[in-house]
Amino acid sequence: MDYIHTVQYYETDKMGITHHSNYIRWMEEARVDFLSQIGWDYARLEDMGIISPVLSVTCDYKKTTTFSDQVTISVSVKEFKGVKLHLAYEMKDKDGNTVCLGTSSYAFLCRCHGRSSSQHERLLRNYRICQP
Amino acid sequence: MDYIHTVQYYETDKMGITHHSNYIRWMEEARVDFLSQIGWDYARLEDMGIISPVLSVTCDYKKTTTFSDQVTISVSVKEFKGVKLHLAYEMKDKDGNTVCLGTSSYAFLCRCHGRSSSQHERLLRNYRICQP
Amino acid sequence: MDYIHTVQYYETDKMGITHHSNYIRWMEEARVDFLSQIGWDYARLEDMGIISPVLSVTCDYKKTTTFSDQVTISVSVKEFKGVKLHLAYEMKDKDGNTVCLGTSSYAFLCRCHGRSSSQHERLLRNYRICQP
Amino acid sequence: MDYIHTVQYYETDKMGITHHSNYIRWMEEARVDFLSQIGWDYARLEDMGIISPVLSVTCDYKKTTTFSDQVTISVSVKEFKGVKLHLAYEMKDKDGNTVCLGTSSYAFLCRCHGRSSSQHERLLRNYRICQP
Repeated sequence: MDYIHTVQYYETDKMGITHHSNYIRWMEEARVDFLSQIGWDYARLEDMGIISPVLSVTCDYKKTTTFSDQVTISVSVKEFKGVKLHLAYEMKDKDGNTVCLGTSSYAFLCRCHGRSSSQHERLLRNYRICQP
Repeated sequence: MDYIHTVQYYETDKMGITHHSNYIRWMEEARVDFLSQIGWDYARLEDMGIISPVLSVTCDYKKTTTFSDQVTISVSVKEFKGVKLHLAYEMKDKDGNTVCLGTSSYAFLCRCHGRSSSQHERLLRNYRICQP
Repeated sequence: MDYIHTVQYYETDKMGITHHSNYIRWMEEARVDFLSQIGWDYARLEDMGIISPVLSVTCDYKKTTTFSDQVTISVSVKEFKGVKLHLAYEMKDKDGNTVCLGTSSYAFLCRCHGRSSSQHERLLRNYRICQP
Repeated sequence: MDYIHTVQYYETDKMGITHHSNYIRWMEEARVDFLSQIGWDYARLEDMGIISPVLSVTCDYKKTTTFSDQVTISVSVKEFKGVKLHLAYEMKDKDGNTVCLGTSSYAFLCRCHGRSSSQHERLLRNYRICQP
């Protein structure tokens, strides 16, 4: 099931169109929704001590969108190998035109028990993966 | 001369790090600064009727940053062909560690004289390039 | 009918809660939805040349929210006098607890025919109201 | 010493002006700068376990600003009583015109030792103040 985002006024810029940085945020919205649909509720994962920082993103803007447009985002898994997940996104407007093609990669890390918050942050800074 | 961005509190997320979407915005800040340094004041360009929508972006996150970190961004021209400009960005923290590598492409378009705002928007939507 | 906003990951900050600036944006979302429900489609109003800059906002934060929380926003008209609209917002979490109380005021202005974009901007800068 | 914010492109909206929600964010920037100037480095305070959620904000928009404008923000203490700090902000453009008047209130809380993160979050949710 695709994710739908309605463009907000605060997402537009003075060119009259959606600011390009927002598509990166919609990819996050769509990812959270996608993971939830396959049973990975992200808020619950985090409560369990699992975090997943973004390793990379790409965005190819095909067509502009603007305030009140409905953008349909379909997410597909390109690769899931080790602790890394690679997703692809296709965003379409109401008429079915592709407005943006994106990709993103994530790592799944756990917050180690018994480590203080500052240690954890240092851990995170280096994206080091926690081993049992 | 490199551009420096100090990470704001509102740019962090609940992982305790800078939200990845902000690096896309810093690339815009650095680009505007870079263009200004080579004599292309972006606000003045826009007043002259020239706009430059973003065609694509990529971001490789190497190391996390967080609130109050100073990020130094160096911009370099990868290619400038026809109406398209391709830039590369290297972002470093205070210790000289690379935190993010990015690229972006832009088109330079003119707002045609005598066209209404809605016509202009339609023009923009298709990224059609205005010919003399 | 109330407006529901689901808190996004990018709306949180390093305190682990929703950054306070986002409530101002949700008030805009709820306002657009509210105006649309009473027959004032904001995108269409803008196409007709009517704009409505914000004159003031207030926010009282009562309880924090965080990622994936559903916030229900009810909008009510406090006053509508001349060209100014004063709205009040009550935001509640899933358990019915008030998380934020807000207000905002707007002016309704028209973009004058035959005026150039830069003239229009100057007009806007002073919030001068266009008379027939 | 006043704080200066240069309006970024991504802070504008389709009216061609700075989106009103950004002034709330600039108030945070100016506050962090102000506290730092009086010896309260906010990043260090947080490392020491002190956090300061926002209790309320108000903004009166006097004049619009737009991309590349330099906004000078002066911060003054209205009241500091118990654990609550009340600040006032005056924002001016390059010509000395007031563009926005704002206020904000903060509580200073400590993260209690020996409490888990989820307990801490619950604490935060209720803005309960930690007593020695």
